[in-house]
Amino acid sequence: MKYVTGLHCIKCGKEYEADPERYLCDDCEDGILDVDYDYQKIMAEWSKEDLKANPDQRIWRFEPLLPIKPETEKPKLAVGDTPVYNSPVLAEEFGIKKLIIKDDGLNPTASLKDRASAMAVVKAQEADAKTVACSSTGNAASSLAGNIASMGGRMNAVIFVPDRAPAGKLAQLLIYGADVVSVKGSYEEAFYLSAEAIKKWGWYNRNAAINPYLVEGKKTVSLELAEQLEWEMPDWLVFSVGDGCTIAGAYKGLYDLKQIGFIDRIPRLLGVQAEGCAPITEAFRTGEELEVTAENTIADSIAVGKPRNWLKAVRAIRDSAGEMINVSDDQILAMMRNLGKKTGIFGEPAGVAGMAGLKKAAAEGIIKRDQSAAVVITGNGLKDVKNARRAAGNPIEVEPDLEKLTAIFVEQGVT
Amino acid sequence: MKYVTGLHCIKCGKEYEADPERYLCDDCEDGILDVDYDYQKIMAEWSKEDLKANPDQRIWRFEPLLPIKPETEKPKLAVGDTPVYNSPVLAEEFGIKKLIIKDDGLNPTASLKDRASAMAVVKAQEADAKTVACSSTGNAASSLAGNIASMGGRMNAVIFVPDRAPAGKLAQLLIYGADVVSVKGSYEEAFYLSAEAIKKWGWYNRNAAINPYLVEGKKTVSLELAEQLEWEMPDWLVFSVGDGCTIAGAYKGLYDLKQIGFIDRIPRLLGVQAEGCAPITEAFRTGEELEVTAENTIADSIAVGKPRNWLKAVRAIRDSAGEMINVSDDQILAMMRNLGKKTGIFGEPAGVAGMAGLKKAAAEGIIKRDQSAAVVITGNGLKDVKNARRAAGNPIEVEPDLEKLTAIFVEQGVT
Repeated sequence: MKYVTGLHCIKCGKEYEADPERYLCDDCEDGILDVDYDYQKIMAEWSKEDLKANPDQRIWRFEPLLPIKPETEKPKLAVGDTPVYNSPVLAEEFGIKKLIIKDDGLNPTASLKDRASAMAVVKAQEADAKTVACSSTGNAASSLAGNIASMGGRMNAVIFVPDRAPAGKLAQLLIYGADVVSVKGSYEEAFYLSAEAIKKWGWYNRNAAINPYLVEGKKTVSLELAEQLEWEMPDWLVFSVGDGCTIAGAYKGLYDLKQIGFIDRIPRLLGVQAEGCAPITEAFRTGEELEVTAENTIADSIAVGKPRNWLKAVRAIRDSAGEMINVSDDQILAMMRNLGKKTGIFGEPAGVAGMAGLKKAAAEGIIKRDQSAAVVITGNGLKDVKNARRAAGNPIEVEPDLEKLTAIFVEQGVT
Repeated sequence: MKYVTGLHCIKCGKEYEADPERYLCDDCEDGILDVDYDYQKIMAEWSKEDLKANPDQRIWRFEPLLPIKPETEKPKLAVGDTPVYNSPVLAEEFGIKKLIIKDDGLNPTASLKDRASAMAVVKAQEADAKTVACSSTGNAASSLAGNIASMGGRMNAVIFVPDRAPAGKLAQLLIYGADVVSVKGSYEEAFYLSAEAIKKWGWYNRNAAINPYLVEGKKTVSLELAEQLEWEMPDWLVFSVGDGCTIAGAYKGLYDLKQIGFIDRIPRLLGVQAEGCAPITEAFRTGEELEVTAENTIADSIAVGKPRNWLKAVRAIRDSAGEMINVSDDQILAMMRNLGKKTGIFGEPAGVAGMAGLKKAAAEGIIKRDQSAAVVITGNGLKDVKNARRAAGNPIEVEPDLEKLTAIFVEQGVT
């Protein structure tokens, strides 16, 4: 960790050594930590040209800005290097100047969370831990299980899920060979059992909300985007927001790049929550402490009523002169179909919520007609076929008869 | 099409001009065509260094070996550039020297078929067609719908499916905005209705078995693999086999590379079919004409009882001094879990059938201990969660109680 100078608490500022098992501030409740770098030294020793010449296309190409020891073995999955598309069609539809879409659902386990989980596998090794644990039924769990599996049997993932977890999500975890503990109880009970177990067996804790290193993995999404855009940043950068880690990580990446002079401005961040679960939007608007809310949305990956990283997220959005906005489930479902139809990108509900928010922000004049925006699709729609089916509408039904088909096509204007 | 000299029938040798709508030989039944190139000219004008310097990572980087006009607009999805992994763990388990795995399930619509469908979108434009049609519920259809969508509304896909098509597969097609015609009848009835409709409305025909250009798209999988392996070919290259197009395409790519001197030998091809549907293996073994079989396998993407491209496939495997082998559904399901657990790659049943065949071929001594092999995972497991669940086994079930969890962990040797 050549350039890491330490950690600091985002609440009280207290500094800590960058120990891989240092998760939280000792003095503050919810005292989330942030990783500090020696930007002057990085500037002196690393350039855009060095980066360009690096043949490693995975997230590890940004090593000078990552809190890892160069010699630690990386999980083998090819995390990162997800495609960026320019969509003039949707830009025109939304009434903005330019629209860039980054499809992070094309990561190896099909979500942005691979970036954090790959980091967890590295940091666990640096903490001499063979087992990494996680309590989730979602993308954090599946990405952890996949990245652990890619170590070829030398490490182990233990995943705690409530017994209501859907069969499909269980399948991904079990295929990756994780020890999956199905807890007969609520999500809270699964979470607390995992916390006790982590403490008892000394496993490494893959919880992006409290583990400061995982956010550093997530920030590679904006490092990568900036490089792909040849360091020309858009006016706005849009993310869906659940527990706040992803948008906070994205901001951290942009902040880092500005400090070392790779970009000259940080885009304004637009954070998008689901109407049925928007505690961070509320805290952003009121300026008060976060109030826990219900979790009423189909966008399960951002359905977080008690987000741990809300303060980091709110500060990131404020510091970027950004905004927050909420979208309805219907707007999300409509956007799944619109995005698929106009771009060939199939996102899960939380994955396209950012895009639905961008459309709304443009309609409300938050994003202006002469402004550009980039949005990250955070997860693949194949992860949630049930909601895709709700979004997708119905096929044309017909007997096997060309005349009947012709009549329907004429009626519907297909040909 | 700077280097394309024409087409020839693989049965009678009759030559044709490379018209985008030339599908089959006029004189032969099932007269599949192959695309010919001026290899001397390519050798004189294109080098490995030129390729290396090409910043386009998509399949279009191989343009001199593709039957396309340079100026034709490409679909925007980032098809190709899928990762290659080295798995010493599985090589040791199977008892071979080296094992390379290419995960083609990380293509934009999650299967190798994106390579053919992207080509279909290009060739349709060259034929002045705005609509491309396809009769399938599988990866051919979803990849076509996705690649058409990425044109931003300027083109249209019409997909014919039998009304028993599973909801999940329909979802992907409808999300991409295809006109999906659900035919009240069997797959055959859907196929014949599509053929009539294609004829009536003059749509472009995306049927890899008869359209010679689509196989040229598929061949990019071996062009890409060869470049990623720095032109050092393994002893064996393994594919699952359904209608025969993919393995025939892979061979064509290798043949092209050998003709222009980029590789010095063609690996032996191992074709793998499912025991419940193995007409090509039978034809390969008997040397007789293909006999149509039933389609009894969970590996739906290779369940083709009447494969159109069997002759091309059989010849490719013979010309490479290769072999064919069959695997059971149980072997496929076991390999889904083994592959997931040891590598973090989640393949669909047809996607991992090749890997199951590789294991069997090694056990039977077809692939020797001192030989290397590469295998392509052709589709993503998220496409078929139902079978993944069958493969994946069960979680540990426990009350929310640390003592009970401890007892189970001790019993099962988890910690």
